[in-house]
Amino acid sequence: CAQSAPPSASAITLSGVLDLGLRQVRNAGLGTDRSVVHGASSTSRLVIRGQEDLGSGRSASFFLDSTIVADTGGAGASAPSGQFWDRRATVSLTDRSLGELRLGRDWVPTQLVWSGFDPFSTLGVVSANTFRSTAASRVLGQAFGTAPETQAANPTLRVSNAVEYFLPSGLGGLHGGLIATAGERGTTAAGQTSGRGLRLGWSAGRFMVSAAQFTTRNTRSGQDFVDRSLGASWNFGDAKLSLAQRRWRHGDDRQVNTLLGLTVAAGAGQIRLSWVHADQSGTSAATNGSDATLLGAGYVHPLSKRTTLYGQVARVSNQGGASFAIPGGPAVSASPTAANHFGGRRSTAWEIGLRHDF
Amino acid sequence: CAQSAPPSASAITLSGVLDLGLRQVRNAGLGTDRSVVHGASSTSRLVIRGQEDLGSGRSASFFLDSTIVADTGGAGASAPSGQFWDRRATVSLTDRSLGELRLGRDWVPTQLVWSGFDPFSTLGVVSANTFRSTAASRVLGQAFGTAPETQAANPTLRVSNAVEYFLPSGLGGLHGGLIATAGERGTTAAGQTSGRGLRLGWSAGRFMVSAAQFTTRNTRSGQDFVDRSLGASWNFGDAKLSLAQRRWRHGDDRQVNTLLGLTVAAGAGQIRLSWVHADQSGTSAATNGSDATLLGAGYVHPLSKRTTLYGQVARVSNQGGASFAIPGGPAVSASPTAANHFGGRRSTAWEIGLRHDF
Amino acid sequence: CAQSAPPSASAITLSGVLDLGLRQVRNAGLGTDRSVVHGASSTSRLVIRGQEDLGSGRSASFFLDSTIVADTGGAGASAPSGQFWDRRATVSLTDRSLGELRLGRDWVPTQLVWSGFDPFSTLGVVSANTFRSTAASRVLGQAFGTAPETQAANPTLRVSNAVEYFLPSGLGGLHGGLIATAGERGTTAAGQTSGRGLRLGWSAGRFMVSAAQFTTRNTRSGQDFVDRSLGASWNFGDAKLSLAQRRWRHGDDRQVNTLLGLTVAAGAGQIRLSWVHADQSGTSAATNGSDATLLGAGYVHPLSKRTTLYGQVARVSNQGGASFAIPGGPAVSASPTAANHFGGRRSTAWEIGLRHDF
Repeated sequence: CAQSAPPSASAITLSGVLDLGLRQVRNAGLGTDRSVVHGASSTSRLVIRGQEDLGSGRSASFFLDSTIVADTGGAGASAPSGQFWDRRATVSLTDRSLGELRLGRDWVPTQLVWSGFDPFSTLGVVSANTFRSTAASRVLGQAFGTAPETQAANPTLRVSNAVEYFLPSGLGGLHGGLIATAGERGTTAAGQTSGRGLRLGWSAGRFMVSAAQFTTRNTRSGQDFVDRSLGASWNFGDAKLSLAQRRWRHGDDRQVNTLLGLTVAAGAGQIRLSWVHADQSGTSAATNGSDATLLGAGYVHPLSKRTTLYGQVARVSNQGGASFAIPGGPAVSASPTAANHFGGRRSTAWEIGLRHDF
Repeated sequence: CAQSAPPSASAITLSGVLDLGLRQVRNAGLGTDRSVVHGASSTSRLVIRGQEDLGSGRSASFFLDSTIVADTGGAGASAPSGQFWDRRATVSLTDRSLGELRLGRDWVPTQLVWSGFDPFSTLGVVSANTFRSTAASRVLGQAFGTAPETQAANPTLRVSNAVEYFLPSGLGGLHGGLIATAGERGTTAAGQTSGRGLRLGWSAGRFMVSAAQFTTRNTRSGQDFVDRSLGASWNFGDAKLSLAQRRWRHGDDRQVNTLLGLTVAAGAGQIRLSWVHADQSGTSAATNGSDATLLGAGYVHPLSKRTTLYGQVARVSNQGGASFAIPGGPAVSASPTAANHFGGRRSTAWEIGLRHDF
Repeated sequence: CAQSAPPSASAITLSGVLDLGLRQVRNAGLGTDRSVVHGASSTSRLVIRGQEDLGSGRSASFFLDSTIVADTGGAGASAPSGQFWDRRATVSLTDRSLGELRLGRDWVPTQLVWSGFDPFSTLGVVSANTFRSTAASRVLGQAFGTAPETQAANPTLRVSNAVEYFLPSGLGGLHGGLIATAGERGTTAAGQTSGRGLRLGWSAGRFMVSAAQFTTRNTRSGQDFVDRSLGASWNFGDAKLSLAQRRWRHGDDRQVNTLLGLTVAAGAGQIRLSWVHADQSGTSAATNGSDATLLGAGYVHPLSKRTTLYGQVARVSNQGGASFAIPGGPAVSASPTAANHFGGRRSTAWEIGLRHDF
């Protein structure tokens, strides 16, 4: 067997995270379920990456990132089948003054901005992506169909076939980039996204602001799906406050997700608080009245720099016909005629877990 | 590329096994088949694991283990799809005096005990798990259905969504632990096991005794499936004798597998002998009369500490309607009306192979 | 995380390639498509391998090789499902004077010979395997069915369940070996090939000649499929000329692929030229008249020993009913009644890319 050694120049790095926890979700009127979950604080993953110095301020690099579905022994995406390197598979050419050219499967810029302002990094029961549900969100359902959440059915997280450009560092706090993805005659449901996007941000001392847009052209209906996010954060030293918005538009349907987040140092650990509101609008009164609010808190207790214990609680309150639920509870339906119709009900949850970075 | 180096503290370890061989199986009356097989002496696998010292006698660790289906280039389980880390995916927190807390996908305690007393580690043509067949075993078929052997259809090997506690070492030879697995609204056929179990053993010098139980609550019928194993071994220096039993119960059906194993040093190598008898019982005379016996021998010849050659022979004798067969031969059926009904017939096999630990 | 270090004895090596590019394919009369492609210059892959010195001129070794479908984050073959180590999974025992015994999944000898003489290593738009299409090639379609190209439907690339012998080095330039694969009651469509083959070559200074045959016995029709390749190359220092042929036979159907290749040093880079002609013959005049010709050129520009930029152009000209197309363009059909019938038409393409070896 091979054991690792101290860093050396021009090396491959093998790293990752193993994060497993216990979750309980109560969906009002439908009961309570307990489960073992992976990645509630940091996505369980295996990363292989490396860099080569080409001289003259230029370098080549690659990055491979695979989800470890550690509770059941899975790896990568459950759909499409065989997508082992589901999180990222890229090769880059970087010039210190010109920036980086990157090819492959990567994150969409809107998710990067949105996740960066979420105290919970869009993970676990307090995830700011709780409202990114093709089953419960009208605008996502209309654009991408109501395939299972676990399917790579919509490009609001990551996209394949991307060509990207990133600004170089050293532009006085300015950062950002451009992205275009080849449609390849496929559909978004198959993970083939024809999209265009950009990201621009600026950080100065304790202040940071960032915005992004990604437009998908091959949605189910043929109409564009526009995904926008923007946010700002202030770091007060012992506390950090963030305010962000993510807006989805497709035809007449819209969903505006607004986030208010706070992290506060508490001894060796950290307290995290989050409020997220989803405002849906469209042509029908039912859609206009179907809003939802997520309220959550968490505490992270470090055992070392690489290992932490955490606990998180959350509550989703639906209004009107909104039927958002925290994942891991009894199955819910958005259909008013279903026995498990969840419109207007509450989903509450807690989880505790152990996270180990390697 | 990256090459390995001498061990260092707090490291990731990449290791595994590549074991490939040739097997011939003759199923009486149905013909003979030859195949290339993986893992007849030690499961071909890729392991990534690591440990972090947290100080004060505490440590965090992770363990990832993936079957290498080396004869066809596959990895992980064939079902469910995408289960790459099929053998183990866990994260642990260990205290020297309190024990270990472990979360994830792991072995069931009954298989750990049973495999530990089998000279062939429940692998290859002489495997003590030859009678763990959902197609031929009535009790397993009733509890889990007769899905293909290759499917993760029954929790008698490994389970997902486990929460485990292990006793610390240093208890005067006492070892053991507890396990509970979340059902997660799934069925055993989908690999979602709702189970409870424990293991307890004691070793003193050359003597070892161990027992375990694992109860599955979400079987096909809704009735509990109880899996128990116990065994003892004596190490005489050049030889080791082991006696073990694995008992399965579901409703009125029972199967008792009894093992007698012997390993004897022979020059630089080792001779292995195994006798396993399966005694089925239930409400019908047919079930009561359907027993089977496995007799097998093997020789392991080391070329180094990490590389060995091996040869193994085995014979399964069925009584009554029992239709157990050594894997790798012509297809057999337990149905009396089928053209390839195997009730009461003999399956004989040999295999030779090369095993390399890395 | 673990970072690599300088080589040491008896080590595991982690290495691979990340190659991504942009391709445009125009299929005459059907339009033009652009896509992001992986492995147009060197297959994107992850390799884990190792060797152990057993003393007395003997060694044991293993080799695991997995395609990285880097444009979409996939890994391994798309079919059969779960074939992660699709390129190679072998264990070997080597004696310096007796040769190598190898078991597992590996390349067929005919592809090794054919690929070795192709300036483009049978990759990208100028691949000498452009005519290895079960949809467009009559002999392949008859032998293996017209399953999608992406399926492991025919054993003209790699085979599972192989037992191989390789001649030792140091035979005065002679090299080669034998291969036999277990059929395992499966069909070629499922990747279970019952085959026999051999390879023999001789290199002397700047001259090299090599030939191979692989016969598949469990084709769709039950008739043998015979795959033969042979070639020769001359290295003039700054240029290398190669001439090769690959011949397929199944029943009355035949396809002869003839390759003329040239590589010329151009500054720090290399110019590559290739001409490949496919001559189909059979019992019908339609088959006899359905030939095709590929003409292509490429330039490889190294940024370092491990990182290169490349650009390649190609044109496939079909005669009669031949409907070969460069992969990545609008869908084509070999059926004369289909709206997208491509018989006798031209497929043209270019691609540019970045390749990084790690």
